[in-house]
Amino acid sequence: MERVKIGLVGFGTVGSSLYQLLEANGQRFARRLGVRIEVAKIGVKDTKKKRPFAPPGRFVQGYSEIIADAEIPIVVELVGGVDVAHDVIRSALLARKHVITANKALLSLYGNELFRLARRQGVELKFEASVCGGIPIIKVIRESLLGNRIKRILGIVNGTTNYILTRMSEEAKSFQEALREAQSQGFAETDPTLDVEGIDASQKISLLASIAFGQWVDYRQVLSEGISGITEKEIQFAKFAGFTFKLIAAAEWLDGRPAVTVFPALLPQEHPLAAIRGENNAVYVDTDFLGTSVYAGKGAGGPPTASAVASDVGDLVQHIVLGSKSNRDKLEPFLQGELYPHQEISYRYFFHFITANRPGIWATVTGRLAENGINIESVHQKWEDKSKPSDLYILVDPAKERQAGKAMREITAAEGISDRSVFYRILLL
Amino acid sequence: MERVKIGLVGFGTVGSSLYQLLEANGQRFARRLGVRIEVAKIGVKDTKKKRPFAPPGRFVQGYSEIIADAEIPIVVELVGGVDVAHDVIRSALLARKHVITANKALLSLYGNELFRLARRQGVELKFEASVCGGIPIIKVIRESLLGNRIKRILGIVNGTTNYILTRMSEEAKSFQEALREAQSQGFAETDPTLDVEGIDASQKISLLASIAFGQWVDYRQVLSEGISGITEKEIQFAKFAGFTFKLIAAAEWLDGRPAVTVFPALLPQEHPLAAIRGENNAVYVDTDFLGTSVYAGKGAGGPPTASAVASDVGDLVQHIVLGSKSNRDKLEPFLQGELYPHQEISYRYFFHFITANRPGIWATVTGRLAENGINIESVHQKWEDKSKPSDLYILVDPAKERQAGKAMREITAAEGISDRSVFYRILLL
Repeated sequence: MERVKIGLVGFGTVGSSLYQLLEANGQRFARRLGVRIEVAKIGVKDTKKKRPFAPPGRFVQGYSEIIADAEIPIVVELVGGVDVAHDVIRSALLARKHVITANKALLSLYGNELFRLARRQGVELKFEASVCGGIPIIKVIRESLLGNRIKRILGIVNGTTNYILTRMSEEAKSFQEALREAQSQGFAETDPTLDVEGIDASQKISLLASIAFGQWVDYRQVLSEGISGITEKEIQFAKFAGFTFKLIAAAEWLDGRPAVTVFPALLPQEHPLAAIRGENNAVYVDTDFLGTSVYAGKGAGGPPTASAVASDVGDLVQHIVLGSKSNRDKLEPFLQGELYPHQEISYRYFFHFITANRPGIWATVTGRLAENGINIESVHQKWEDKSKPSDLYILVDPAKERQAGKAMREITAAEGISDRSVFYRILLL
Repeated sequence: MERVKIGLVGFGTVGSSLYQLLEANGQRFARRLGVRIEVAKIGVKDTKKKRPFAPPGRFVQGYSEIIADAEIPIVVELVGGVDVAHDVIRSALLARKHVITANKALLSLYGNELFRLARRQGVELKFEASVCGGIPIIKVIRESLLGNRIKRILGIVNGTTNYILTRMSEEAKSFQEALREAQSQGFAETDPTLDVEGIDASQKISLLASIAFGQWVDYRQVLSEGISGITEKEIQFAKFAGFTFKLIAAAEWLDGRPAVTVFPALLPQEHPLAAIRGENNAVYVDTDFLGTSVYAGKGAGGPPTASAVASDVGDLVQHIVLGSKSNRDKLEPFLQGELYPHQEISYRYFFHFITANRPGIWATVTGRLAENGINIESVHQKWEDKSKPSDLYILVDPAKERQAGKAMREITAAEGISDRSVFYRILLL
């Protein structure tokens, strides 16, 4: 049986999971594709390091030996980080090798350049594992939804924040308690900033938006808010009002431009994403012909990520061995363009004002909302202790971000209303 | 730009939706594949019939003209039914044309033969739309999960029954009321037998099991129970006990054989399939590397089904125009073999005994359960009227189908226990 050699760069969690997968299920590839996959070389920093599942005689120092090996047509970059990974991918593409990566941080910075380079070199740069781990969302968008115009994508694309929000909601824990629990469970990093502040999510949704709409989206231009400010009271009030807090990464096609955002949102309990618990990920896609569909599963971890990489290996092997001249998976060049300005997007909102107990507060709040054209849907306030600030919760009808932001600034400028007051968006079905 | 001609056979709901899709979004194909898709001929029974969206000058009577047209490399069979559709597909394959079908009834009868024929002829027979309409479950199983060993598939694969069960559960309607509502909404046929008795579901899960496990599964050998006997009381009790009734199509690899079943099951509220409401479909897949993942969306209707057909068109066009010699999508020959005997499968059960009010009933029920090695987990009974039969609900620990069936036969043979007594399986996470 024919063999295809692949070179692995990086042998951490994902790299060693991929190796195990190919050992355990190589038979499936052989049966389906008529080809045996052989992990010919594994590039690592330190070839002497003790490793579990370390196949003997395949480790090489660094990656240059792999790039130089003419018998290796596929390089799998699993080193992570940005600098070395960028060098690995660039060198491999320049050597006309197909590349598979799981590195969304890298792609969100250099994807536009690297996809162009791959196209120019006549090879493919595959990245199924870079968004939502094992959920096959890239293939779904690019192949299964090919006949559809994508209207909107909503995703829970970060397992850390979903785990934290689930614990806060189901067990009335504070953000700090839930974060510590996530850390002890291995679902959060020691420095959780990239996750809890929505940066990881904005990188992933930018990649999804880019392939869905064909316009390159730079994650640094995405409105991105995290979950670290959400309080137990807010979670509990949302629950009482029939909503669940989720960190939602959204991409929508509005007036010929992509609107791309990441923020904690209130979803009604019957929203398909409201049921996604713990460290799971899910992506909800709305299109013109299929309508809405949802893809859910494990968004991180060695074995799920290896599953996605293996699917890319299968696609590439098909092209190499079976001689397709396909340019299907060479992304067409991305259009360059502006994002839709998020100030112009409309949402319903949940305002949480922290107010003193004095006359005039209600008049100020309701007056400023009215002046900004914001219509109140319902109001909730319960005094627990008249000597302390109180929580005033207001749900309002749809208004633009610009209106909500201006009203908030005006209201918190008034006496007796704390600037810790906040608003959250509500996403209805 | 290069053109690829396709021939459509059948121009009903799905056929006309596909035509509209290619009109509306043909641009996407052109951009992604570098090819224009042209619907060159449309075979129908009556070319004179008035049709909305009928493109002039393309209708031909029957399908022979399409098969004979050497310029048409792809035939899309959307006539439905079994006999004519079988002739269309066979003739097209014999003429070395690629075929796309959405016809699961046909495939479940003749799939094994037709896939072999396609393989022999060196062409492809694609069928994404045949299971769960627009949900890309075939591509996911065959391509995205290629690196995984599939352990279990659980699906809500029939929209009619899910709509009926949702109405029964959420609005306390009877089966007959909910069925009439489904019919008036267009979610159920005038003769609903194929749907409500689980036959449609058994055809779909047999196809999924065949591709997941590589062994051909004949749906006529699948244990298949419908939902028409479920009563309002049973639905309400299940709800009270924390469960939702769903018609579950299941395929599992047990001791080297596929176990394939269709029956109404009780799912705990937190099961991902419990949240699938109305006419929606969803498939839950458990594999060795990815773990569990869920794919949900519209399982029927013209536009969603057309979306799936379009994805097959994209795959085929890539192969034809871009010259792949791929045999990726020619299924390897299915193994022939037996199913795992369902009498040997273990479940937890919900027993519903309808009993007279007399001494000895409890002794009989609990005695026969014990003799058959079935351990009681909880018991619920509430007399509403002592002069009438009462409902005795018993939840039990796992036992084999054989044990549950034998206990049920012995118990209902006793005096005072109605043979309308039933049991349902409980599927925990």
